[in-house]
Amino acid sequence: MPLKDYRFEGDTRLHIKQMPTGAGEDAGRKAELVQLTGENIARAALLQEKLYAAGREGLVIAIQARDAAGKDSLIKKVFSGLNPAALEVHSFKSPNSTELSHDYLWRINQALPPRGKIAVFNRSQYEDVLIVRVHHMEKGYKLASRCLTEDFFERRYDQLRHWEDYLWENGIRMVKLFLNVSREEQKQRFIERMEREEKHWKLSTADMKERAAWDAYDEAFEDAINATATRRSPWYVLPADNKWYTRYLTSQLLLDTLEDMAPEYPPLDPAEAAKIPQCMEQLENGG
Amino acid sequence: MPLKDYRFEGDTRLHIKQMPTGAGEDAGRKAELVQLTGENIARAALLQEKLYAAGREGLVIAIQARDAAGKDSLIKKVFSGLNPAALEVHSFKSPNSTELSHDYLWRINQALPPRGKIAVFNRSQYEDVLIVRVHHMEKGYKLASRCLTEDFFERRYDQLRHWEDYLWENGIRMVKLFLNVSREEQKQRFIERMEREEKHWKLSTADMKERAAWDAYDEAFEDAINATATRRSPWYVLPADNKWYTRYLTSQLLLDTLEDMAPEYPPLDPAEAAKIPQCMEQLENGG
Repeated sequence: MPLKDYRFEGDTRLHIKQMPTGAGEDAGRKAELVQLTGENIARAALLQEKLYAAGREGLVIAIQARDAAGKDSLIKKVFSGLNPAALEVHSFKSPNSTELSHDYLWRINQALPPRGKIAVFNRSQYEDVLIVRVHHMEKGYKLASRCLTEDFFERRYDQLRHWEDYLWENGIRMVKLFLNVSREEQKQRFIERMEREEKHWKLSTADMKERAAWDAYDEAFEDAINATATRRSPWYVLPADNKWYTRYLTSQLLLDTLEDMAPEYPPLDPAEAAKIPQCMEQLENGG
Repeated sequence: MPLKDYRFEGDTRLHIKQMPTGAGEDAGRKAELVQLTGENIARAALLQEKLYAAGREGLVIAIQARDAAGKDSLIKKVFSGLNPAALEVHSFKSPNSTELSHDYLWRINQALPPRGKIAVFNRSQYEDVLIVRVHHMEKGYKLASRCLTEDFFERRYDQLRHWEDYLWENGIRMVKLFLNVSREEQKQRFIERMEREEKHWKLSTADMKERAAWDAYDEAFEDAINATATRRSPWYVLPADNKWYTRYLTSQLLLDTLEDMAPEYPPLDPAEAAKIPQCMEQLENGG
């Protein structure tokens, strides 16, 4: 299924249970798509260089997923091919007490890249409408009671739309990924984390609590994605049961996005250009 | 003229040339109003303590003005009476190269106070629709050309309205002050800066360039204020030719705002309350 069928821009509604978690028909094209993944990343790296040189636009790729859906390995495998000087990865853990005393975008705003760079968000602003909603965390916030309205999360969706629009209008594109893993595949990955010692560092028995809230997360993801998918700032709901396939799709969307941004090396300043003959002469005369 | 007549919430249009720059009829009440200023600050300080203790809401007071309108002395005189532990002053100078490579709210977002505190912004996000507009600085920005639209500043007004709405909904109030100094009074203050040695550190001959653009600033202030004055995040256009009068009005709006926020000391956690008798006993027995 082509990448565009995984893309949501707000014109069609996402029904999360109808989206594939595996490679489907593309399973038979594994060798071809793995090779294409490498080629996509190499082409993306060339565009990244131009983006960096031009310094006129930035890109944020925000990745959301359930536990063990493969966020960390996706970042390692797809983004290792880019120039790290023009790349930033920000992992958003549970907010600390300083972060909780501020507006929820405070820590996210600080992590926004300058124009010219790509930032990957491992979790993002969407935590504030996902885990917070599922566990009703907002009820425990130290926040003026006037802010805890009935439509608290609808307000947040609006806020996120406005904020992403602001970023678009100021030269920062935000593309959002949901890695869609199946309940069965998550089970297998949890078991592997428990059984294999070198995977123990990834193990958190608290993840079982989130797994138990599977349906509530389905609803929270679906509502958040439907409310915040726009043409400027789309969501991609990518199957995550086969890591090679998720990587392929991610490499494709990275390349497509950069091609759409179409960065160009900046032209030489005419005043600088005028000085070139003199500089050449100086260099040739041993200067 | 009462404070509310200097307040703009978006329902009435500001015509900047019709607004007073002096104390008008209130000039005769100087002694009374100077005394009231001190009383207002003292009452505000008591409310600030509650705001800090509760930690549920923050306040930003953003001050914009022409050169020599008295921003610095206003901050010194009115806010010295508050507890500095729960107060932050941020002065926004010309953006540096790191700040310019980011979205324009990037540096402002970092300066937002946590809930429980008051922040005073000496200049603010509005520089980006004032000096930038007057001198067409946006044309020199390294920014994707798609962002440099015809309605660039109208978009920014929208962005600021949405951003201030976001802050309101997340427990941060933003109140905006324009210190309205007359052309004649600015002239006198510039002369004083040139003649008196202890004022030389305030002197910048570049301020003459801004003075020359007086009418363009009139228009930029008027448009920005009319576009961003809302009930949640009002503008106050305060006369600035008489410093004592500006201080009085500012002390009044600080007090009014805090009274409207109505902070309360948080009630004791019942679990903590239950432990009090035991703690008392322990203390009385020399523990």
